[in-house]
Amino acid sequence: MSKNFSFVNDEFVDTDNAKIGIKDLGLQRGYGIFDFLKTVNDHPLHLEDHLDRFYKSAETMRLPVPYNREELTDIISQLMRKNKLPDSGIRINLTGGDSDDGYTITRPNLVISQSFLRYNPEIFDRGWKITTFEYQRQFPDVKTIDYLNAVWLQPQVKAAGADDVLYFYNDELRECPRTNIFIVTRDGIALTPANHVLPGITRKQLLGLKEFQVDEAVLTIDMLNDAAEVFITSTTKLIIPVLAVDGRTIGNGQPGPVTRDLYAALKKIQYS
Amino acid sequence: MSKNFSFVNDEFVDTDNAKIGIKDLGLQRGYGIFDFLKTVNDHPLHLEDHLDRFYKSAETMRLPVPYNREELTDIISQLMRKNKLPDSGIRINLTGGDSDDGYTITRPNLVISQSFLRYNPEIFDRGWKITTFEYQRQFPDVKTIDYLNAVWLQPQVKAAGADDVLYFYNDELRECPRTNIFIVTRDGIALTPANHVLPGITRKQLLGLKEFQVDEAVLTIDMLNDAAEVFITSTTKLIIPVLAVDGRTIGNGQPGPVTRDLYAALKKIQYS
Repeated sequence: MSKNFSFVNDEFVDTDNAKIGIKDLGLQRGYGIFDFLKTVNDHPLHLEDHLDRFYKSAETMRLPVPYNREELTDIISQLMRKNKLPDSGIRINLTGGDSDDGYTITRPNLVISQSFLRYNPEIFDRGWKITTFEYQRQFPDVKTIDYLNAVWLQPQVKAAGADDVLYFYNDELRECPRTNIFIVTRDGIALTPANHVLPGITRKQLLGLKEFQVDEAVLTIDMLNDAAEVFITSTTKLIIPVLAVDGRTIGNGQPGPVTRDLYAALKKIQYS
Repeated sequence: MSKNFSFVNDEFVDTDNAKIGIKDLGLQRGYGIFDFLKTVNDHPLHLEDHLDRFYKSAETMRLPVPYNREELTDIISQLMRKNKLPDSGIRINLTGGDSDDGYTITRPNLVISQSFLRYNPEIFDRGWKITTFEYQRQFPDVKTIDYLNAVWLQPQVKAAGADDVLYFYNDELRECPRTNIFIVTRDGIALTPANHVLPGITRKQLLGLKEFQVDEAVLTIDMLNDAAEVFITSTTKLIIPVLAVDGRTIGNGQPGPVTRDLYAALKKIQYS
């Protein structure tokens, strides 16, 4: 296996030796943002969307990005050339910087890492079972590094025999920790929570499909229970049909026709 | 200035070169806990209370501590001997470990650092102005590293001319990001929120003072507005009188008698 490089602040380093000082505000106060994109056959997918979101997250969280968009794009290109991983995930992590008082933002620490990632369609066929949990993410429209609740919940999710957890709050659907949720109504309309969720890039792709009825809405637990189909979306997972929620089967327990059509359309955008 | 050492996982290292791998779950997902204690004249204050809380935080967050209590106490002693800082703050930080999938807890990364800290009574005399903000900390009884909201709020706190922010939720008082709050009623009873707050060690000391009326209670915004005195407590700050809340003066704008008495009692415990 050839060496893997990461970009740390201002240089490319061997990932196994890539480190951040212990005074970093991410380590001390969980303060940071990130983004995650994938490359397919050496092409970074929806790069502009990911950079839009990354710079917006940074701005909201008052973190100055040490490189402009053009420079960051160039660094990502250089990293791809070094690592030679045509199918990969690229994570751009920006934390609050080395803070002597452990509280004040300084020059942020930037880490860009790349690892092998190739989409496997088996995850679509297998589908997901999910469980639900009442929780509202802090700064929901920002891709912060705060996954305290999500990581903590993992043993409970596994104990429930589920693949992931769907957050709801005050009876309204939100999102899974790393994916957006969609329901398909009995009229065949795909709906995703409009507010208080991360604006996912795959979610955005589906909302942009003019030949389908896909929209944002306020979604309740009742609407989830009444849905004809349910699915989740993410950069890594594309679309996964949700076949059961809290032990209750959705539809006939098989991926539904709208889910299949949207999945085919998304694959066409990304893989052809 | 002599060299400062930190303890990282299993060795003492020069703090300037002390680092953690970029795969750490603290950096990637804000997943970690910590504790902070002080030494006075080379004596670690309330060490057992801090270790109680540290191990409890770790257990709640499902983080296995790589050392038992005796070993950790010994490491802290060794660090103190190396650094020769009789008056100091010691931070014990435990994050989720180097995680290849960026989501699963592994062997936690432990960092213990020590820096100069000497209490300056001027902060009591000056007092604090605070502002309020509706917010409920996640895992409120755990000292997690999640200060996303607190760090983010700093510019707003400064713009309000305040020294810190007091969280409230559903009309009930909670805490400041790094200190507990107390109000003193017109009957001279000192009260601090009973639930949904970090169990501070200084707060615990005051609750244990048998010669004073100090208790836990459910406290509302109305009770804050009607308070004769208000003060905050922390390991670093001991007691600071709060002289104004959201621009409204508390009492006559001077430290009150109950606050002064409790402050004297606390100083006696810690400094004599």
